[in-house]
Amino acid sequence: MSGCSQGRLTVVGLGPGNVDQMTPEAVAAVEAAQDFFGYGHYLDRLSLRADQRRHVSDNREEMSRAEAALQIAANGGTVCVVSGGDPGVFAMAAAVCEAIEAGPDEWRKIDLSVVPGVTAMLAVAAKAGAPLGHDFCAISLSDNLKPWSLIERRLVAAAQAGFVMAFYNPVSKARPHQLATAFDVLRAHLPASVPVIFGRAAGRPDERIRVVPLSEASSDMADMATCIIVGSTETRLIDRQDRQPLVYSPRSSKRES
Amino acid sequence: MSGCSQGRLTVVGLGPGNVDQMTPEAVAAVEAAQDFFGYGHYLDRLSLRADQRRHVSDNREEMSRAEAALQIAANGGTVCVVSGGDPGVFAMAAAVCEAIEAGPDEWRKIDLSVVPGVTAMLAVAAKAGAPLGHDFCAISLSDNLKPWSLIERRLVAAAQAGFVMAFYNPVSKARPHQLATAFDVLRAHLPASVPVIFGRAAGRPDERIRVVPLSEASSDMADMATCIIVGSTETRLIDRQDRQPLVYSPRSSKRES
Repeated sequence: MSGCSQGRLTVVGLGPGNVDQMTPEAVAAVEAAQDFFGYGHYLDRLSLRADQRRHVSDNREEMSRAEAALQIAANGGTVCVVSGGDPGVFAMAAAVCEAIEAGPDEWRKIDLSVVPGVTAMLAVAAKAGAPLGHDFCAISLSDNLKPWSLIERRLVAAAQAGFVMAFYNPVSKARPHQLATAFDVLRAHLPASVPVIFGRAAGRPDERIRVVPLSEASSDMADMATCIIVGSTETRLIDRQDRQPLVYSPRSSKRES
Repeated sequence: MSGCSQGRLTVVGLGPGNVDQMTPEAVAAVEAAQDFFGYGHYLDRLSLRADQRRHVSDNREEMSRAEAALQIAANGGTVCVVSGGDPGVFAMAAAVCEAIEAGPDEWRKIDLSVVPGVTAMLAVAAKAGAPLGHDFCAISLSDNLKPWSLIERRLVAAAQAGFVMAFYNPVSKARPHQLATAFDVLRAHLPASVPVIFGRAAGRPDERIRVVPLSEASSDMADMATCIIVGSTETRLIDRQDRQPLVYSPRSSKRES
């Protein structure tokens, strides 16, 4: 791609982890690119050719990764920035946009595209039944990037308005206590029986899906790779013999405002 | 599959419409099934073999479609219920769960699985930049299944708490006025400059993505196949020469609760 003055940057969603859940569009974007930026764990999922270059960076270095990728694209490269799941949901697409806005004018001329993917909450919901079958929200519990007071306010607003909630980034070594606090906040606003789904590695061999009532939900049931779905007052559990229960949120609501 | 006492039902998400956005897992589920239930528009996307049976039904007949599909599976059939996008987001997975809960005990023994897909808001967001890069919610604007007062309450709660919003089912012939009312409600709670994205047929040849400020958002910019994303007060627009602007929601928030 050298010699080409305007490069190309594609932000690609690899899906939840199982290669069968990665779209052909994402596969084609990976085949077409020369330079790959991402967290090592995601780059390891790809079978790159000898002529394709890996630029591994840590999960916390999103801005510097975006800048380095944009610089190569600005020099005429064909660059792929990879995210697990969907790149637009708490992932690299926003970091790339932030870097473009703050960066040199020439970065706005780069041919940028975003390739969507199956985001974690959809994969976890599919394994549990249909917990996202009605109005829902997605909240990152990381307070690295926003004040915890804002997260608490959103939890209360979502519970009171009857949204099912999906939590991304529920815990990390640097933030061991937030998830326990989040459950305590929700227990003050939702019935004890509301189902909580802990989903990890959905669709992969080490998949783990666990459903507990909110009263029993505990932060030690999750790690940083877990996506958590908290039902609303209308979310239901269907018991099944010899199978895990189905969790679903009915399409209709009788609830008055 | 006759002679087998326990059938199989798979609820499959076909993705937003472009075949390149349908996962290999969904393709395999379609190849393995014998009986297909769905809205004709979605079944038309599949290249079925001569031995595969189509059971077309209208978009408003979700419960009777789910029941008919479950009955064939209960008789030992291998059945596929198809949805556009992701089947767990305002689509057939919840209808199938509802039918199982209300139906005969034997339906709980059916081998049920849900195959996730790229849901419309992710495809539209990808075309616009990264508008769902921070906390967001998804709301169906159809008041066929819930009171309009509840929808309004959720719009206000989401605006006040700073969620970006994605609207599904924004209008229909039977409901021409709800979307205009929704924009009026939001204009009372959000700045006039907040970007609103109207996305239709994202990733398909007839794709149309339009971005306007909330002050100019109008219900005639949407039809029933449009997915609408309304930014938060933190959503930003990046102007680019000769390209459509990028819309994104920064990963961080300075907002206090």
